[in-house]
Amino acid sequence: MGELDLVRSIRKWTAGKAPGLIVGVGDDSAIIRPRAREDVVLTTDLFLEDSHFKRDTHSAADCGWKALARALSDIASMGASPRFALVSLALPPWVDRKWIRGFYRGMTALASRYGVRIVGGDLSKAGKLACDVVVTGAVPTGQALRRSGAKPGDRIVVTGTLGGSSLGFETAKGPALRRHLRPEPRIEAGEAIRSKLGATACMDLSDGLAMDLHRLGKESGVAGHLHWALPLFPGASLRQALMGGEDYELLFTVPPSVKLPPVIAGIPLTDIGEMRKGRAGYVTFAGRPLPVSGWDPFKTRSV
Amino acid sequence: MGELDLVRSIRKWTAGKAPGLIVGVGDDSAIIRPRAREDVVLTTDLFLEDSHFKRDTHSAADCGWKALARALSDIASMGASPRFALVSLALPPWVDRKWIRGFYRGMTALASRYGVRIVGGDLSKAGKLACDVVVTGAVPTGQALRRSGAKPGDRIVVTGTLGGSSLGFETAKGPALRRHLRPEPRIEAGEAIRSKLGATACMDLSDGLAMDLHRLGKESGVAGHLHWALPLFPGASLRQALMGGEDYELLFTVPPSVKLPPVIAGIPLTDIGEMRKGRAGYVTFAGRPLPVSGWDPFKTRSV
Repeated sequence: MGELDLVRSIRKWTAGKAPGLIVGVGDDSAIIRPRAREDVVLTTDLFLEDSHFKRDTHSAADCGWKALARALSDIASMGASPRFALVSLALPPWVDRKWIRGFYRGMTALASRYGVRIVGGDLSKAGKLACDVVVTGAVPTGQALRRSGAKPGDRIVVTGTLGGSSLGFETAKGPALRRHLRPEPRIEAGEAIRSKLGATACMDLSDGLAMDLHRLGKESGVAGHLHWALPLFPGASLRQALMGGEDYELLFTVPPSVKLPPVIAGIPLTDIGEMRKGRAGYVTFAGRPLPVSGWDPFKTRSV
Repeated sequence: MGELDLVRSIRKWTAGKAPGLIVGVGDDSAIIRPRAREDVVLTTDLFLEDSHFKRDTHSAADCGWKALARALSDIASMGASPRFALVSLALPPWVDRKWIRGFYRGMTALASRYGVRIVGGDLSKAGKLACDVVVTGAVPTGQALRRSGAKPGDRIVVTGTLGGSSLGFETAKGPALRRHLRPEPRIEAGEAIRSKLGATACMDLSDGLAMDLHRLGKESGVAGHLHWALPLFPGASLRQALMGGEDYELLFTVPPSVKLPPVIAGIPLTDIGEMRKGRAGYVTFAGRPLPVSGWDPFKTRSV
């Protein structure tokens, strides 16, 4: 399996036209043509063997799906529409052509759902599998959601349910495992939160509610106060909901005047607390200070 | 060294405004605002411990410089101006804060030379250091250089000299070593080749002239015929010039009617051969078939 062959195959697996795509896989760089009155959002996300996945729990297709889902979730959190992806892969000796085919199958299954086209990347060898996925998105000029806009008095809201990925990782079975292996980026919900709800800040929940709300509060200069009623994934514990990573739900804030719909773009919304004046990034849960902890890639491993 | 601390430091090291930059390091995605009548070019490049560098030969600052230089070279090959970079880093236990500071020092030294701003990235742990650098560039709509435009009769041209990086890697001393550790992406030359020379195709020399000319010929559907007189880096062998990787010079083609200047943007140009009808990607050197070989990351290691 030489590089030239593999590039040829990847080009075939990812072929196709897309609005705004001028050159895809196979040249030195991809070329895209942004539309007028749109900002471009850009994110990059590592997905590493033994840090983010293990060979024996994640199939090749799971890896492809999840590597892209993580990056798409960053695009969703800006309220943007994803457009293009670049995929860098460092391949260890245990990987064969079939694995790579499976990886791209899983990735393109998710990509095609959101009209995302894979337009480039890089290939290398390594001792362990390393993947880095870049995704671009588009959003009307000046309208992207950010972490920094929350105000005292704003309601704190999450999409969907929490703790499922952590539960799935720990029990390795059932719908929770599927959620761990194949998270669903909240693309349509993110777009609707931006365009219909007048959200003041938004981010995705990748490292657990406690850590991520701390980050959002820190950027916005406010303190977050959570009440008891968190929307738990069926079977998940409070610890899994607060400290578990990889839920990839959206955490956002809206002014108190906004009447929150129960569901947006098919995903339930739950009011989980309130932003108040206070130390930036300070977080309480049911009236008690919540330690800033969650999945810190520098301290623990997720798998 | 926790992730929050490190993100704070990186934000400080990379801070600053730039035209078209709306949000940089610290949010879920970066936000950039493309200019009217420009295409966006996008590239991503892996830089991996023991595949692309070794701890004991590359200082932290060399690593930062070279990881960015490799990606910038892809932007240069499109005739584009680089704008923004995102840097993903997976950090092994041997890396400390001082190393990371040095890495960013080396990278920002090169970035600031070309007005490139680091606007995002990702951090993780890993057993070995892995880096992926994404760079965006801008080029007037429809004007980007590609690999696929060379025509029979076109002259084949390279910037600068060949074989220096390979010589530096093998001898580990002198100006050749500096060239190996701190390659200079040919940004201004690429822009001038696009705007002033009417080049029909262009790519950067990352895997050796033999391999890269094969690729360019393959994409363009022509055969490349090299003559004897290659511009060798002082002390480099023909083998190093033909098969050695990482020169990061530009390889391009121009119609025979173009009068080639001896120097462009301060870099010497050398006519090294001619494209002709024939099997796509077939390459000869001084009249003899040249095997397609060079640095294939799947077969050999560069370090």
